Amino acid sequence: MSFSIRMSRTKASGIRAVQKKIALKPDVISFAAGLPDPNLYPLEDLKTATDLLMDNDGRKAFSYGLTKGYGPLIDILVGRMKAKEGVECTRDNIAIISGSQQGLALAALMFIDEGDIVVAENPSYLGAINACRPYGPVFMGVDTDDEGMVIEDLEQLLQENPRVKMIYVIPNFQNPTGRAWSLERRKKFMEVVSRYDVIVLEDNPYGEIRFKGEFVPSLKALDTKGQVVYLGSFSKILCPGLRVAWICASPEIASMAECMKETQDLQSPEFTQMQVTSYLNHFDIEAHIKIIQETYKKRSDLMLEMIREYFPPSVKYTEPEGGMFLWLELPKELDANEILDEAIEAGVAYIPGDSFYANEGPKNTIRMNYTTVSEEQIRKGIQILGDVFRRHM
Amino acid sequence: MSFSIRMSRTKASGIRAVQKKIALKPDVISFAAGLPDPNLYPLEDLKTATDLLMDNDGRKAFSYGLTKGYGPLIDILVGRMKAKEGVECTRDNIAIISGSQQGLALAALMFIDEGDIVVAENPSYLGAINACRPYGPVFMGVDTDDEGMVIEDLEQLLQENPRVKMIYVIPNFQNPTGRAWSLERRKKFMEVVSRYDVIVLEDNPYGEIRFKGEFVPSLKALDTKGQVVYLGSFSKILCPGLRVAWICASPEIASMAECMKETQDLQSPEFTQMQVTSYLNHFDIEAHIKIIQETYKKRSDLMLEMIREYFPPSVKYTEPEGGMFLWLELPKELDANEILDEAIEAGVAYIPGDSFYANEGPKNTIRMNYTTVSEEQIRKGIQILGDVFRRHM
Repeated sequence: MSFSIRMSRTKASGIRAVQKKIALKPDVISFAAGLPDPNLYPLEDLKTATDLLMDNDGRKAFSYGLTKGYGPLIDILVGRMKAKEGVECTRDNIAIISGSQQGLALAALMFIDEGDIVVAENPSYLGAINACRPYGPVFMGVDTDDEGMVIEDLEQLLQENPRVKMIYVIPNFQNPTGRAWSLERRKKFMEVVSRYDVIVLEDNPYGEIRFKGEFVPSLKALDTKGQVVYLGSFSKILCPGLRVAWICASPEIASMAECMKETQDLQSPEFTQMQVTSYLNHFDIEAHIKIIQETYKKRSDLMLEMIREYFPPSVKYTEPEGGMFLWLELPKELDANEILDEAIEAGVAYIPGDSFYANEGPKNTIRMNYTTVSEEQIRKGIQILGDVFRRHM
Repeated sequence: MSFSIRMSRTKASGIRAVQKKIALKPDVISFAAGLPDPNLYPLEDLKTATDLLMDNDGRKAFSYGLTKGYGPLIDILVGRMKAKEGVECTRDNIAIISGSQQGLALAALMFIDEGDIVVAENPSYLGAINACRPYGPVFMGVDTDDEGMVIEDLEQLLQENPRVKMIYVIPNFQNPTGRAWSLERRKKFMEVVSRYDVIVLEDNPYGEIRFKGEFVPSLKALDTKGQVVYLGSFSKILCPGLRVAWICASPEIASMAECMKETQDLQSPEFTQMQVTSYLNHFDIEAHIKIIQETYKKRSDLMLEMIREYFPPSVKYTEPEGGMFLWLELPKELDANEILDEAIEAGVAYIPGDSFYANEGPKNTIRMNYTTVSEEQIRKGIQILGDVFRRHM
């Protein structure tokens, strides 16, 4: 028996390989994670919200519901998109999905034909690339600087490549670099893409975890042509185990997403959608998000402080204003993959940055996560890693 | 902006159109549903199981887990596949999915190239066909009789069409006909398909709801070459709102399904997987399934009794030994779609049978559901429908 041609285009995740290595060494201080801190889940409130749900509306929660999603949750999301993102929308713009990843998969299914070009930031989240791979697109990267995607490079690429179909971006506290796009860059980006027939897939799981600087509107809020498909998620601001996320897009796209979701899994679980709704109705998620912001800020600040003190000065680093990651650039001659085994041996793990490039990437970069490590682990781990780096210089 | 070529192959569901019509008339007695009876969910036990889960393992339940699924649930399923289906398997054969529908979508993604042939029973569940449509296969139907798929027709089709890639079947209490395949037919089917390089996609959501006759092993239990991909689900035997189902297949296929699921939605919700596990660990699902069987048997028997009494004798019907549906065949000159509006006007709804054909189907068939109607509704509804039919003869 043979798989479809599509399957020959898939590729094993480099991140998984690292995480398997780490799993064998439970004492390792891991900066390799991509998870929110489970200790920050509002566990008691989630339990109360779940009990209230089962007491008041249990039978419905265990039943089939609509493919589009649970109505009251959609209404809440319409309100949140307006209040928090400045996006004017109605129910017709929203569809509930099972985690942002499902939004990436649906976008790939809906838009990508073989030979189409998918543009991503260089580097970017590989989960999006992997969702597209089966459909056989060509991947192209556009470099980013501290302000966001480099517009001149993007414009040149668009001019030279009429088959660009989709541009995938994470403008807020990007995975893996932790950087956020400036307002000016966002405006320029939208101005450029509005001249082309392309879809912008805006992935925003971290946007609400801003712990420094000013709020910057999403690309969707600057979208006048309905070409931005926005993905939001409760995984990082509440908890990931319920898999509740949403698409906000033009009615035409939202409705096609609903149609396709019906073929994919009929609907997201009514129970978990109603759990999130019950939590939002009975508790103050904004107060909870503040706690996440403050905790991650402390850890990020501490990590930066330790990096300045213990890393060789030739190691460059990003300074995140939110989210879960920062990004290291080692001197060009160093290979983060080669150093990793030694680092793990010494008791520290990270993800080599070349895992985040659709095509070839530089070997001297590293993604560091600070959300699932204690302050003590950050102090100790960064010192160890500094020593490992020094030995290679 | 334009959708992928794939999207031009999709097709709106005829069932949805009927269900929208009915939604406008809440007093209609609906035999059009495809749902288990929500009044049969073991609501108190599910609530207790959920509370125990949150008290004992809450943080894990709200967290990310493995793409393959929650380990203890996989272990239970290995045991159930052996005990209830006679299928020898290990953890390597199982992957948890979000409803059987996701299994259909993953099979389509994994196996179907453009121009491949997908064979289904005539008629069959359109959700499977619709999951395949985007990938551009050719659909062919093989007729079924009271014993199952007509083997001679299947064999001829396989001989004449080397591009058959997948055969989709529901051997137990099929949706829409309610029929179950005999053991002998299953053996012959497996004997034939084992000579061809084809995947058998065995969809078994209703198998445990047998309320008459003897247990018959699944095709997977008769599969010596690892060509059967089996889909099981808790939606009909426990509740559908948690979206917990599973694939049982060769390790190679199960592992590819896991890889692809990672690109589709990372994982099914840890919470709902652990809810089902907690229920299975603390309560007796077999006792609960007995209640479902007895209730559906009563309703099915009553519907058959009323059909014999009130339908014109020229209307043929299947006599289900389990599941949720029976199938009507009206005289050839009648069109179930044309009669439907009049039936709804008179207070009764059903699904016209031509909705269940991948290509053209006969116009004189009807799917009847007996699981979400009361005995009183069955008595009244069948009488009304009998009158409507008579007016057309």
